[in-house]
Amino acid sequence: MTNAATSGPFGHLHIFDSTLRDGAQGEGISFSVQDKINIVRALDELGVAYIEAGNPGSNPKDLEFFAEVGKIKLETSRLVAFGSTRRKDIKASEDANLASLLSAGTETVCIFGKTWDFHVTEILRASLDENLAMIRDTMAFLVSEGRTVIYDAEHFFDGYVANPDYALSTLRAAKEGGASVLVLCDTNGGTLPDAIREMTETVVRELGLPVGIHCHNDTGMAVASSLLSVKGGATQVQGTLLGFGERTGNANLSTIIANLELKMGLRCLPEGRVADLTPIARRVAEIANITPDNGMPYVGFNAFAHKAGMHIDAVTKNTKAYEHVSPESVGNERTFLMSEVAGRSMIIEKIRKFDPDIQKDSPMAAQIVARVKELEHVGYQFEGAEGSFELLVRKNMGKYKPFFDLHYYKIIGEQPVEGVPCNAFAQIKIGVDGVMAVTAGEGDGPVHALDVALRNALERFYPAVSHIRLTDFKVRVLDSKSATAAKVRVLIESTDGEEAWSTIGVSSDLIEASWIALVDSFEYKLIMDAEKRLRIYR
Amino acid sequence: MTNAATSGPFGHLHIFDSTLRDGAQGEGISFSVQDKINIVRALDELGVAYIEAGNPGSNPKDLEFFAEVGKIKLETSRLVAFGSTRRKDIKASEDANLASLLSAGTETVCIFGKTWDFHVTEILRASLDENLAMIRDTMAFLVSEGRTVIYDAEHFFDGYVANPDYALSTLRAAKEGGASVLVLCDTNGGTLPDAIREMTETVVRELGLPVGIHCHNDTGMAVASSLLSVKGGATQVQGTLLGFGERTGNANLSTIIANLELKMGLRCLPEGRVADLTPIARRVAEIANITPDNGMPYVGFNAFAHKAGMHIDAVTKNTKAYEHVSPESVGNERTFLMSEVAGRSMIIEKIRKFDPDIQKDSPMAAQIVARVKELEHVGYQFEGAEGSFELLVRKNMGKYKPFFDLHYYKIIGEQPVEGVPCNAFAQIKIGVDGVMAVTAGEGDGPVHALDVALRNALERFYPAVSHIRLTDFKVRVLDSKSATAAKVRVLIESTDGEEAWSTIGVSSDLIEASWIALVDSFEYKLIMDAEKRLRIYR
Repeated sequence: MTNAATSGPFGHLHIFDSTLRDGAQGEGISFSVQDKINIVRALDELGVAYIEAGNPGSNPKDLEFFAEVGKIKLETSRLVAFGSTRRKDIKASEDANLASLLSAGTETVCIFGKTWDFHVTEILRASLDENLAMIRDTMAFLVSEGRTVIYDAEHFFDGYVANPDYALSTLRAAKEGGASVLVLCDTNGGTLPDAIREMTETVVRELGLPVGIHCHNDTGMAVASSLLSVKGGATQVQGTLLGFGERTGNANLSTIIANLELKMGLRCLPEGRVADLTPIARRVAEIANITPDNGMPYVGFNAFAHKAGMHIDAVTKNTKAYEHVSPESVGNERTFLMSEVAGRSMIIEKIRKFDPDIQKDSPMAAQIVARVKELEHVGYQFEGAEGSFELLVRKNMGKYKPFFDLHYYKIIGEQPVEGVPCNAFAQIKIGVDGVMAVTAGEGDGPVHALDVALRNALERFYPAVSHIRLTDFKVRVLDSKSATAAKVRVLIESTDGEEAWSTIGVSSDLIEASWIALVDSFEYKLIMDAEKRLRIYR
Repeated sequence: MTNAATSGPFGHLHIFDSTLRDGAQGEGISFSVQDKINIVRALDELGVAYIEAGNPGSNPKDLEFFAEVGKIKLETSRLVAFGSTRRKDIKASEDANLASLLSAGTETVCIFGKTWDFHVTEILRASLDENLAMIRDTMAFLVSEGRTVIYDAEHFFDGYVANPDYALSTLRAAKEGGASVLVLCDTNGGTLPDAIREMTETVVRELGLPVGIHCHNDTGMAVASSLLSVKGGATQVQGTLLGFGERTGNANLSTIIANLELKMGLRCLPEGRVADLTPIARRVAEIANITPDNGMPYVGFNAFAHKAGMHIDAVTKNTKAYEHVSPESVGNERTFLMSEVAGRSMIIEKIRKFDPDIQKDSPMAAQIVARVKELEHVGYQFEGAEGSFELLVRKNMGKYKPFFDLHYYKIIGEQPVEGVPCNAFAQIKIGVDGVMAVTAGEGDGPVHALDVALRNALERFYPAVSHIRLTDFKVRVLDSKSATAAKVRVLIESTDGEEAWSTIGVSSDLIEASWIALVDSFEYKLIMDAEKRLRIYR
């Protein structure tokens, strides 16, 4: 398959991710400032061209985000602040939203405006001419402030069908104002792929500016529509990495990226990055606390899972029998739903951090792979739990000695009473080199009480424990259909002010899962400290 | 959009559902005989042309199924048994699988065979000529036994790309043997939509038989590929109603049906049936015990859900502002998701379900809005917690009386011991109209124990409580930076087999958050039952 865009006048394709803006309109999605920062880092690592991230004027959270994100140096991606054209009947320079947009301090901004005459008169309640002026003025003002402006033509396709002349005149207004890219949005998601291709071709021909495409999945064809728009000449593709978005979601960029790079031979990421697609997609899902569809193309847990016996036999003979691309090409793994077979290369890769010389076929590697598979089978997942993974490798390589023995813990909880601060109590007994400590703790809920009790017990032996601060605590219900008896996965992030590490625990008892992750966190800190002392006194 | 198929030589489009055969290859799917019968009834009610349902020879369950299903009179659909071409080096009449296929007693059978030369020589390990004979013989034998035969050309597109002459010769063999329809299968799911369209056109032109299309979703474009194949002349569309299937799934027929009927003006169901699409899709999901993606086009819970405040305002003015078709056209509903960004108009919209006359500026509305905002501020989120929202509205409108009073609950937890099933215990005291009940429960973890204890307490007064099944349990840590003292949000989904509802609880104690959601769930069920009784005896 060849494409105009590869040799077109505007260079290679640009991926524009809107997980933090349009994606936040998805059900159940609500990002903290730290979540947003972590997603920006992940997308930059993947190498998308643009990361759209809201407007500092829209709420205090976004204000804090832009202040924080300014401190990070991005390798590949450009951050984009998002807003709309100026309000009617005022000057662009007097519009408070545009002023706050500028305060984000991004070099590139994205502005949406109305294309569909019906929306201008019925929803915006402005005249058609005033809308054109709003678009033109807004572009010109932002350009005069030194910004590169991407113009999102909301409802472009519905608008073009209703009134093609007016729709094109809105794009001309954006061009006249100085927009750098014209993005055609299928906001309601109802346009069919071949129609999108045809209308893209028209705009590319008529406007003479780089064109982008922004699809929603209401007909289940956002991916196809985006790719056919690229075949029609679009060079920027907007969407969200995992398809998060209002209603049926935005175009799924992980699918689009893999299709462009692997099936259509079009470059849209820096060389080699498509092989990081699956781990990065899963990291973003984890940050968003969303379980992505197992059947998601390329990056889903089942994208290369074979169940039918006949298919498994054939794939064992030759993988191309039932696989259109190799799972490794997108950083995913082949799995057999009936007979589990280990995909060990990723694990070996990780063990090399501790023993660079380890061989794929060494007994030690095989033992660790087997242990990881065993733990994964019961719900562990070491992506995003590097601290626990390191402890696991150490335990298997004999580079670990427990810091304490647990004799028991007990927790007691009651219904909270207004005005009484703690409603849960924990008691704990540990031993360190034969010395026993029995301590208690109270807290908001049993996990907090257990955390307090464990600190009280350990500080006597290891004063450094007092420097550990837990910065994040995430709970994911694994088999949520088992309801209150479901297995849960707890992820904890910790810091001592210098380093940060993450640990994991899995159990059908949330208290125990938290306990496991907590103990890993404390042990990881103590091991790090012991190693530092060794380095100093060596 | 017009299409060759509408006026083509083979009449209108046929939908061929393979939920019971290819869909059963999906992860986590396993149908009982009764499940299969129920799905057949649902698909017949929807009015698909064909229902594919396995082979009585493949396992005893399918044998029993065909015996049972023979007793049902189908209104619209034809049942199809499925098998492969005869084994190599024997006569079709001596093939045990074909004999068992005939024993299913269906008028129509579907047979798959090899198209791709690589698969013939490397996987099947037969000669290219022998494969042609296998296809031809199998068709001829089944036709001689009075069957109508649909021929599924496995890997057609990959086979055609590798060796177009051989691929076409397999189709000719099927035609010569007496096949009625030639179905082009993109078995590995890697072919792009425009290529599928082109190759479909070639087959329609070269073979002179009705052509079908069978896509998998490995590039995220199974729907688009199926529809473009129809534009290329295909008149049968194979898939599964909810996209169930191996790896990334089969083409989603609910999306395809809605697109064909509503967006392309092509008839594929009996008149008016597309309006039943959502309830029937949800019934099939319930039978399969699979939670379909909320964002599924047309039939998903969020397909017409609006979250952004601006979108909600616009849809309230004119639904076409952000909807490409009406939710009613597919039997779905418009919903407004509660979110930080949504304003009060959406809350009013929800209150209208209980009091259609309520005005935006009524004191009652203001009071409820204020309460919702207050709860949102402490972490509640009524999007996805409709049950709790309804209770909240009822409480404020005086349409609520508590079913029981809680006197206390206590929980005790210990570290789980290998082999001992329960590690947590709960004790609870409630009163119903002055009668006290003190009960206990044990479970995996304190939340499970509390659930058990509450049921034990309530069943005495309200036996209907025993019908409540919790189907989903989600935990979200809100201010995860407070670590183990963080506030958590618990969402519970429940069902009594007829209705489903969702409830929410927020607390810095996970146990209490779960308790709040649990109590809401039980109360919601009891209120629903009371209302039903009122309706019956009124």
